[in-house]
Amino acid sequence: MKLSNGVEWAAHCCVVLSQATRPVPAARLAEFHGVSPTYLAKHLQALTRAGITSSVEGPVGGYALTREPGAISLGDVVAAIDGDQPAFRCTEIRQRGPLAASPTACATPCPIAAAMAVAEAAYRDALGTVTIADLAADVERGKDGALARLRTWLADGDATAVPTPRRARR
Amino acid sequence: MKLSNGVEWAAHCCVVLSQATRPVPAARLAEFHGVSPTYLAKHLQALTRAGITSSVEGPVGGYALTREPGAISLGDVVAAIDGDQPAFRCTEIRQRGPLAASPTACATPCPIAAAMAVAEAAYRDALGTVTIADLAADVERGKDGALARLRTWLADGDATAVPTPRRARR
Repeated sequence: MKLSNGVEWAAHCCVVLSQATRPVPAARLAEFHGVSPTYLAKHLQALTRAGITSSVEGPVGGYALTREPGAISLGDVVAAIDGDQPAFRCTEIRQRGPLAASPTACATPCPIAAAMAVAEAAYRDALGTVTIADLAADVERGKDGALARLRTWLADGDATAVPTPRRARR
Repeated sequence: MKLSNGVEWAAHCCVVLSQATRPVPAARLAEFHGVSPTYLAKHLQALTRAGITSSVEGPVGGYALTREPGAISLGDVVAAIDGDQPAFRCTEIRQRGPLAASPTACATPCPIAAAMAVAEAAYRDALGTVTIADLAADVERGKDGALARLRTWLADGDATAVPTPRRARR
């Protein structure tokens, strides 16, 4: 079982966007992360499809969070990139074979599926309690000034932005 | 993110084996589950590699659990089939780009990786508390007599077993 690599990229982008005072162009997000804009684009588009980011058109356009960083959980980001399907998908094995249970006898979930669902709920609950604001606060506590430098870097980009129209990505 | 289908087959096989009084041939396990022996074989072999089952050679050979059903957790079965690698694998994105953190500044995990690890630990902990004995007890509580019928079916197989040598699978 492996999460898509996009989860890591998307979560980092959200933390960066939480420090921006205006939309951040996709190219600038890609530059900050040292990755190609085309690679990052699909993850930014997935965040936008999930309603976590929006893309703003125009010369000062780019990506922005749609709500407060404290209202976006890490679970929201995982679901945006990797979907919200359960990892375990019961195929009703108990309804197979010579002693197959009847569908009516299977009104309640198979105990195996039920136990897997409890574990997945614990996972989702844990991810749901961590917000982008929490993650940014953790970085701030790192004492290496990473967030302050990020904010300066973002502001420098704002100051030097060339005001040419830019097609918004969604 | 999706678990291998093998997890479901392997967990069902373990519950069946928990009700057997002697090794169950792979062909009989496949018959019980209404699936081809070749398909089931790879999951049984994975359980054996993980030390959850053993295969016994000879005319009354087959698969058996290596320890009490109460000492085999659903987490053990998931790890046997799907491995025990974390689902989230940090690639140290914070060490990329123009403001890259130095490796020495990254002695502690990235907050994103740390939060993902906490969630995965919650998932594993939940799976670790459910044993094959618990799952069998849950089936027993189903009141449709499924486990009693299974035990009778397994005993019938023992009585009619043809004593021809059978190559053990591992």
